[in-house]
Amino acid sequence: MSYAEYFSSRRDEHLNELKDWLSIPSISALSEHKADIRRAADWLMGALERAGLEHIELHPTSGHPVVYADYLHAPGKPTLLIYGHYDVQPVDPLNLWTTPPFEPDIRDGKLYARGATDDKGQVFLHIKALEAFLKQEGALPVNVKLCIEGEEEIGSPHLTAFLEANRDKLAADAVVVSDTALLERGRPAICTGLRGLASMEVTVSTANTDLHSGSYGGGVPNALHAIVSLLATLHDDKGRVAVDGFYEGVPELSPLMREEFAKQGVNEEQIRESLGLGALYGEEGYSFVERIGARPTLELNGVYGGFQGEGSKTVIPKEAHAKITCRLVGEQDPQHVLDAIEKHLKANIQTGAEVAVKQMEKATAFNIDPSNEFLQIAADAYGKVYGTRALFTKDGGSIPIMASFSRVLQAPVVLMGFGLGDENLHAPDEHFNLENFDKGLLTLVEFIRAL
Amino acid sequence: MSYAEYFSSRRDEHLNELKDWLSIPSISALSEHKADIRRAADWLMGALERAGLEHIELHPTSGHPVVYADYLHAPGKPTLLIYGHYDVQPVDPLNLWTTPPFEPDIRDGKLYARGATDDKGQVFLHIKALEAFLKQEGALPVNVKLCIEGEEEIGSPHLTAFLEANRDKLAADAVVVSDTALLERGRPAICTGLRGLASMEVTVSTANTDLHSGSYGGGVPNALHAIVSLLATLHDDKGRVAVDGFYEGVPELSPLMREEFAKQGVNEEQIRESLGLGALYGEEGYSFVERIGARPTLELNGVYGGFQGEGSKTVIPKEAHAKITCRLVGEQDPQHVLDAIEKHLKANIQTGAEVAVKQMEKATAFNIDPSNEFLQIAADAYGKVYGTRALFTKDGGSIPIMASFSRVLQAPVVLMGFGLGDENLHAPDEHFNLENFDKGLLTLVEFIRAL
Repeated sequence: MSYAEYFSSRRDEHLNELKDWLSIPSISALSEHKADIRRAADWLMGALERAGLEHIELHPTSGHPVVYADYLHAPGKPTLLIYGHYDVQPVDPLNLWTTPPFEPDIRDGKLYARGATDDKGQVFLHIKALEAFLKQEGALPVNVKLCIEGEEEIGSPHLTAFLEANRDKLAADAVVVSDTALLERGRPAICTGLRGLASMEVTVSTANTDLHSGSYGGGVPNALHAIVSLLATLHDDKGRVAVDGFYEGVPELSPLMREEFAKQGVNEEQIRESLGLGALYGEEGYSFVERIGARPTLELNGVYGGFQGEGSKTVIPKEAHAKITCRLVGEQDPQHVLDAIEKHLKANIQTGAEVAVKQMEKATAFNIDPSNEFLQIAADAYGKVYGTRALFTKDGGSIPIMASFSRVLQAPVVLMGFGLGDENLHAPDEHFNLENFDKGLLTLVEFIRAL
Repeated sequence: MSYAEYFSSRRDEHLNELKDWLSIPSISALSEHKADIRRAADWLMGALERAGLEHIELHPTSGHPVVYADYLHAPGKPTLLIYGHYDVQPVDPLNLWTTPPFEPDIRDGKLYARGATDDKGQVFLHIKALEAFLKQEGALPVNVKLCIEGEEEIGSPHLTAFLEANRDKLAADAVVVSDTALLERGRPAICTGLRGLASMEVTVSTANTDLHSGSYGGGVPNALHAIVSLLATLHDDKGRVAVDGFYEGVPELSPLMREEFAKQGVNEEQIRESLGLGALYGEEGYSFVERIGARPTLELNGVYGGFQGEGSKTVIPKEAHAKITCRLVGEQDPQHVLDAIEKHLKANIQTGAEVAVKQMEKATAFNIDPSNEFLQIAADAYGKVYGTRALFTKDGGSIPIMASFSRVLQAPVVLMGFGLGDENLHAPDEHFNLENFDKGLLTLVEFIRAL
C-alpha cells in the first residue's frame, strides 16, 4: 500500500489519537499545570512506544522533563535528531475561544485546540511518519533520535544544559524541527532565520497603600501615570526602540536581502484588511516582511494596575505592572538588551515612583545558510508533495533553543514547518489545517526516504 | 443620665449593631451586589424604626433605592435634612485586607470594614444621636428629615432627579452631611469646598484578534503601545493636565486663599514619610494642600490589557483599557471637561489604533461661605466636645450630590465629618477610629441642642 493510502486509511484513528494528546492542558507557564505537563509527557512516551521506537526515556530537569527516544538500525546512514515540544501557551482570554481550548474540535477541515499547530500537532506528524515506515517496511532508512521538551513556551530554560550534558547521546548529522509555518496555503517554506527572545517583568511602585483620589489626587505620584509615561519612552515617534544600545549587533539589510524579502510577494494591503486594521504600523523605512523578519522589536505583552472591574473606582493605585518581550536579530546579545532596557527604565522613572525589573528569557537569534544539503533535500521533499519547492525564508518568531542546537551539536538545523501564519498561535481559537496534516506526513516520508 | 453616660453604657450594643450593617456587601458599582444593596437599605429602615423615627419610606429609583424618614414635632424650630449613603466602594485587591472587608473587626481602637468610615459608620452616628434624644428626652428639639441613598459611590446618578421631584417633602433650613474627615486626630474641620467629579472609560483597539509577537511583532500596531503613548500625553512634565480647555473655569488662587491653606500647617515631609514615598508629586507651583484642595486633577484609576498571568506570553493584544476620573474645582463644567479629554484622545491616538470613550459620572464642585450661621454653630459644637473649634477647610474629595442639594433645596450644606484622612477610604483595610465614633455622637448632640 502506498504511504498516501496508508495515511488515508488511518486518518480518523490518527486524528483521534492527536485529540487525546491535545486535551491535556500542558501549559508550561502556569505552575498549577505541572501535573498536566507530566501527563502530556507520559502520553508522548506511550505514543513513541506504539510507534515502535526504542530507548524511550523521561529525563527530569529542574523544570519540566525532556522525552527522549531513538531507533538506530541504519549503520552508515545519516542520523537525524527530531526536536519539538509538548508544552503549550496559556489560553486566556478564555471567553474568545469558540470551543474550549482543551476540547479539540474539527470544523471546516481545521483542528481547533491549544497546541494543535504549536507544537503537538507538528510533533505528532513525525511520530506517525516514523511509525508508518516501521509498519510498512519494518525498518527506517536512517537513524533517528527524538528530543521532545516541555518548556519551549517559557524559553527552554533547562534544555541547553541538557544538550551539553548529553552531547554524545544526541549527536546527529542534522536536527529537524517542525514548529514553523508555510508562507501561505500551498506555498511551503523552510525557515533559515529565527529571531531571538529576551523578556522581563516591570513593576512600578509608589505609596505603601492604594490611596483615595479625592483625599490625595493631585498631590501624590500615581503608579499608573508613572508606568504609562515610562513605557511611552521606550519607542520614538518613528516606531524605533528608543533605548540606548538596543540596536547593537543588528545587521544592516543589504540590497540582496531586501530583494529576497521582496520575492515573498507579501500583499500588505491584504494583511491589513484580514487583521481588520486601519493601518499597519512599525519601524519607519522597512516593509512588513522586513520588520518581522529582520528587525528587532520591543513589545508590551501585558500592562495592568488599579481597578479593572465594572464601573469606576476613585483609587490611586500603589503599583502597576508590565510584561515585555523583545525579538532579537543578528548578533544582538539578549543579556545586553535586557540590561540596556533596565538601565533606560531606571533612568526615566518619574519622581516619587520606583521601578523594579525581573529579567526572564534570554535567547539569541538563529540563522542558517540555505545551501546546506539537508535543507536542499527538504525543499525537494516539499516539492514532491505540494507541487512547488519550498522557499527559504526568515521567520519573525523565536525558537529559543535553535541557536543552542547548532552550537552544541554542531549540526545544521532544518526547520520544516507545516503550520500557517493565521492559525492563531498563542491566541484564542488556535488550529491546524488538516490539509497540511495530510501533506506534512507525506513530506516527512519523502524527506527521510531521500536522505 | 448625661449623654456621655448614655452612649458609654450602650457602646458595645451600638458597635455590634453597626458591625451587623457593615457585614452587608452593599457595593453599588457591581451589579452582582444588587440584592446586598437592598438588604443594606432594609437594615437601615429597621434601624430608623428602632430609633423612633417616623414615615420611614423606601423610594425606588431606576438604580438603587433612597431611604427616607422624618420626625417633625418641633414647630417654629429649624428643620435639618440629614444626608448620607449606605452603599460602599468595591474591595479589590482583596488579598491586601488584613481581615475580610465584610467581617468587621475591632483592633487597636479602630473598626475595620468596608464602609466603616465611608459612610455607614458616619450615618450610624446620626441615627444613634437622634435615638438618644428620643430615648432620653422623648422628643427632638428640632425637626429632622433623613435622606440616605445607595448610589453615592457611583456618582449619585438618580438623586438629583429624586431631589427635584421631592423638593417640598425634603425642604429644610440646612442640609447636614457626615462624609468627610477631621484635619487630623483631635483637630476637627468643617469642609466648605468639595471637588467635582467627571469620569470615563477608554478602550483602545487594534487588530480583530490577539496576535503572536513572533509572527507579527514589529509589523502591526500593539494596543498596549498605543494606550500608554496616548495616556502619557494627558500630562506635561510639570504635572499639569495637557488637555486643551481642561482648566477653563478654574479660579486662580488668591493670596488670601493661599494664606488659609497655609494655616492648616500641613507637614508635607510627614505625609511623604507616612505614605512611604520617595517624593510627593503634583502640579508645579502649588503646595500639597493646594493641589488636593484647590486644583483639578486627571487620574488614571485603572489601566489594563494583554497577559497578566504568571510568567510571560508573547502576545500582541488587540485591545487595552483605561479608567479615568477627574476632580474638578470652581466653575469647571464636567461635560466640557469630558468632551475636551475625548477630543484630545481622538486627536492623539497612534496610526493603526482606534480609541472609544464612554463618559460616566459628571458632578460640579461645591463651595459654601463659612460665615453661614449653621456652619458657625456646628464649629462651636465640635469645640465643646473636642476642646478645639472646627477649622473651615477645602476637601479634595467629591460628594457629587452636594452641589445639587444647595441648588435644588436652596439650603446651606453643613459638612460635619468624623473620619480621618488615613482611614483607607476606597482602599484595603478601611477603618473608623472609635475615638471619633464616641466624640461624633456627642458633637451631633451638641449641634442639635444648640440650634
